[in-house]
Amino acid sequence: MAPRALDYESLNENVKKVQYAVRGELYLRASELQKEGKKIIFTNVGNPQALGQKPLTFPRQVVALCQAPFLLDDPNVGLLFPADAIARAKHYLSLTTGGLGAYSDSRGLPGVRKEVAEFIGRRDGHPSDPELIFLTDGASKGVMQILNTIIRGEGDGILVPVPQYPLYSAAIALFGGSLVPYYLEETANWGLDINDLRQSVSRARANGITVRAMVIINPGNPTGQCLSQANLKEILYFCYQENLVLLGDEVYQQNIYQDERPFISARKVLLGMGPPISRELQLVSFHTVSKGYWGECGQRGGYFEMTNIPPKSVDEIYKVASISLSPNVPAQIFMGLMVNPLKPGDISYDQFVLESKGILESLRRRARIMTDGFNSCRNVVCNFTEGAMYSFPQIRLPPRAIQAAKQAGKVPDVFYCLKLLEATGISTVPGSGFGQKEGVFHLRTTILPAEEEMPEIMASFKKFNDEFMEQYEDHRGYSRM
Amino acid sequence: MAPRALDYESLNENVKKVQYAVRGELYLRASELQKEGKKIIFTNVGNPQALGQKPLTFPRQVVALCQAPFLLDDPNVGLLFPADAIARAKHYLSLTTGGLGAYSDSRGLPGVRKEVAEFIGRRDGHPSDPELIFLTDGASKGVMQILNTIIRGEGDGILVPVPQYPLYSAAIALFGGSLVPYYLEETANWGLDINDLRQSVSRARANGITVRAMVIINPGNPTGQCLSQANLKEILYFCYQENLVLLGDEVYQQNIYQDERPFISARKVLLGMGPPISRELQLVSFHTVSKGYWGECGQRGGYFEMTNIPPKSVDEIYKVASISLSPNVPAQIFMGLMVNPLKPGDISYDQFVLESKGILESLRRRARIMTDGFNSCRNVVCNFTEGAMYSFPQIRLPPRAIQAAKQAGKVPDVFYCLKLLEATGISTVPGSGFGQKEGVFHLRTTILPAEEEMPEIMASFKKFNDEFMEQYEDHRGYSRM
Repeated sequence: MAPRALDYESLNENVKKVQYAVRGELYLRASELQKEGKKIIFTNVGNPQALGQKPLTFPRQVVALCQAPFLLDDPNVGLLFPADAIARAKHYLSLTTGGLGAYSDSRGLPGVRKEVAEFIGRRDGHPSDPELIFLTDGASKGVMQILNTIIRGEGDGILVPVPQYPLYSAAIALFGGSLVPYYLEETANWGLDINDLRQSVSRARANGITVRAMVIINPGNPTGQCLSQANLKEILYFCYQENLVLLGDEVYQQNIYQDERPFISARKVLLGMGPPISRELQLVSFHTVSKGYWGECGQRGGYFEMTNIPPKSVDEIYKVASISLSPNVPAQIFMGLMVNPLKPGDISYDQFVLESKGILESLRRRARIMTDGFNSCRNVVCNFTEGAMYSFPQIRLPPRAIQAAKQAGKVPDVFYCLKLLEATGISTVPGSGFGQKEGVFHLRTTILPAEEEMPEIMASFKKFNDEFMEQYEDHRGYSRM
Repeated sequence: MAPRALDYESLNENVKKVQYAVRGELYLRASELQKEGKKIIFTNVGNPQALGQKPLTFPRQVVALCQAPFLLDDPNVGLLFPADAIARAKHYLSLTTGGLGAYSDSRGLPGVRKEVAEFIGRRDGHPSDPELIFLTDGASKGVMQILNTIIRGEGDGILVPVPQYPLYSAAIALFGGSLVPYYLEETANWGLDINDLRQSVSRARANGITVRAMVIINPGNPTGQCLSQANLKEILYFCYQENLVLLGDEVYQQNIYQDERPFISARKVLLGMGPPISRELQLVSFHTVSKGYWGECGQRGGYFEMTNIPPKSVDEIYKVASISLSPNVPAQIFMGLMVNPLKPGDISYDQFVLESKGILESLRRRARIMTDGFNSCRNVVCNFTEGAMYSFPQIRLPPRAIQAAKQAGKVPDVFYCLKLLEATGISTVPGSGFGQKEGVFHLRTTILPAEEEMPEIMASFKKFNDEFMEQYEDHRGYSRM
C-alpha cells in the first residue's frame, strides 16, 4: 500500500521538525507515571491553578453571571453575588451582541478592546488605538499568527533569545522559517549584549538569511530576568538600524519579584524615544490572562497590540484572524476585567486586593526559596528569578553522568530530569528544550508549587541531586568548574 | 526606507492570498453601516445567539457553577441552581486538575474525551477511542490543524466541494496548498456525482498535483443538502481507491429539517463497510458546540476524531496542538454536556427538551419560510435547506445588472448583495465567496433571524429583489433562463 496522507512518512515536514519540550518527553513520562498512581508535581508548565492557586473571586463571579444571564433577573441573585459583580456582568453583556454564546468580531469585542487600549494608555503614558488591538485565545495564538504573517520561507530569520520559551522555535519551524539565536549571558544575570546580537545578525546574513524580526521575552522565560530601560532602548535602536520588527512577549509584566527593575513596556520606551524611531519601528506586544496574579490559563485569553503597522497589513491580519471566526468570548471578559480592575470604594475591592497581593507576595517568597534552595545543592548554580514564573538552575553534570546519559541514548539534561522525575515526582523541563550553550546544562521549573509544600519539594530535590552527584562524580578529583 | 517586515509588500504571500468572504467586503460594509446607526440583520455567519436565540439553560447553569466553584459551598446555591446542575458541575470539575483556570492536556480533558468517545460509539454502533479524539477551540481550529499536517506545498491538492465553506479555501491558501474543486450539482439538489469527482482528480493530476485529501461538508454549507448512505459509501470507496484522507465536516449533524435523509456519519458508514476499507481508509471527523440547537459559537468548542491514523502521526498532531497549550476549558465542559445530555427523569430534563425542540422545530419552519420566500421572487430559485443553517438561492442576474456591476468594479453578486444591504440592512455573503459555476450567481443567508421577524425580512428582500430586477431587466425581451 502506498503511504497515505496521514501516515508519518508523508506528513508536512515542518510539522515533524517542531519540538515543544514543555509538553515533551518529560511531560509524557510524568503523565504515564501519574496514571500508574505516582504523585507528580507538575512544574513543567506555568499553570498556577493546577498547583492549587485559587482564582480571583470577583472576575469569576462576573463571568459566571455572564454565562448565566438569566440569574440577573432572579430575585435571589444578591444572595450569591455582590452588587458590583452584578453591575460588571451587565456591563460586559452590554458589550456583546447576544452574550457569550455569539461569535464576536474576529478581533474581539470592540468594547473590551477599548478597555485594553485605555489600560495600555495609562500604563505607557501614550494613548493606544483599539483598532490596533486584537484579542486572542491566549497569547501563544497571537504570537503564532504574527510569525505566520512575517515568515515567507526558510530564508526568513527570526532573532530569538537562547534560552527561549519553545513556542518561538516551534512556531518558526512550523511556518518554515529560520531561528536565529542570540545568547543571553548567564554570568551577567541573563543579560543581553548588543554586540552579541549584532554578531548573530551578521552570521545569519552571511548564511543568506534575511533577518526580519526579533523576539524579546520580558520578564524572561525561562530565565526570569527583567530588562532595564537602558537595555530596551538599545534593543529598540538596534531593531531600527537593522530594520527588524520587534515582538515583545510581555505576558509576565505583572510578575516582578524585585524593586530595582520594575516592568517597563517596549512600547513605552519606544514612544518615549520620539521620532523618527517612534513613528517607524514596527512593534507587536503580547499579553495574557494566564499569568500575573490571575493565572487563568484554562480560559485562553490574550491580546496583541500593534505599533506602526500600516492599515493594509492590519487588514491582512484581520482577514486571517477571521478564518477562525472569533476568540472565545468568556476569556475576552476576563481580559476586560484584568485591564479594568476594581477601584477603591467598590464593594469587592478589599477582597480583590487581599487575594491578588497574597498571590504576588507568595510568588516573591517562593522565587527566593527556590533560588536559595538550588544554590544550596551540589553542582547547581541559579540566578534569582527577578520576574516571570520560572527558575532555571544550571546543573553541572559530571563527565561520568554525561557518559551514562550517552549510553542510555539520552541528552544529558533529559537523563538528569528523567531520573529526578522517577525519584521525586518533580516534573521539570530539561534546559535543552529551551536552548543553552554547548556543554552547559539546565532545567526549568516553575516557582508555582504551593508555598507550604516548597520546603519539602526543595529538600526532595536536594536529596536527589546530591545523591546523583555523589554517584556520578569522579571521586579521584573531579573539580567544580 | 526599505520595506519593513510588516509592511504589506513584504508579508507572507500565502497570507495575502487568503480570502474569507464570510467576514469579507459585505461584512465590513455592514459593520460600517451599523456604526452609522443603520439596523443590520447579520445573516452572514451562522451565529444564532447574535440573532436572539436563547442559550439552553442547563449547560449555562453548569458552566456558571464551574466558573464560580465557591458557590458550591454556599448554603443558598439551591435557590439559584437546580440539583442536577450542581451535580454536573461537581462532575466536570472533578475531571479537571484545578478547575477552569488550569490548562488541560493539549488534547483536552481526558474525562470529556471519554464522554465524546461514548457519544460517538452510541451514534455509530462502533466503539471510539478517546486517545484519538482531540478537543479544539471550535471545529475550524481542528480543520486548520489537520490541513496544516497534510499540506506539504503547492503540489499537494485537497478536494473541496464547490460551493464550499470558505474555511477550506482560506486554510489551503494559508498553508500553501492547492484547492482541487469538485462541483455540486444545483439542479440535482446539490448532489455529488462520483464521475465528476473522478474527473476533478484526473485534471488535477494532469496538472502535477498530488491529491491528498477530500473534504465533505454534511449537511452542506452553504448548500444545505444531506448525503445519503449510498452516496457516502461511494465517496468512501472513491477515497479508498484514490488513496485520499477523508475530512468529514459534520458540524451540522443535529440540524436536519426533513425526514427522508437523517444524518449519518461518514465513520458509521465506513466501519459498516468492513475490511479492508474500514481498517485502512483515513478519516478525520469534525464537530462543534457552535451549531445544532446549542449555537454556543462564542464559547469556541469542538473536537476532531481520527480513524485509521497511525499512532506516530497522532503523536505529531498532539505535539503541534501542544504549542498552544490547551483548548479553552469552559468550552470543553460545553462539549461534555452536549455529548452527554440530560436523561428522562433528571430534574431539568423537561425544560431542556422543551428548549431544544423549540429551537429545532423553529429552524425547520424557518428553512421552509425562507426557501418559499426566495422561490416567490423574480429570477430567484432556491433548493430547500435539508440541513445546516443556510439558504443558498441562485440569483439570475440580468445582463444589464452584470454590466452595471462591471462598471462599478464589482463582481456581479457582490454588487447585488451590496445593494441589498444598503436597501434593507440584510447582510448576506455573495455566492462568489463560496465558489460557483462560471456565470451563475448566488447569495448565502443563514436561516437564523427570529421566526417572528422572518416574514418581514423576506418581504423586504422580495421588494428589493423585484425592484432590482425591474430596474435591470431588459424589457425588450429578456427571457428567464
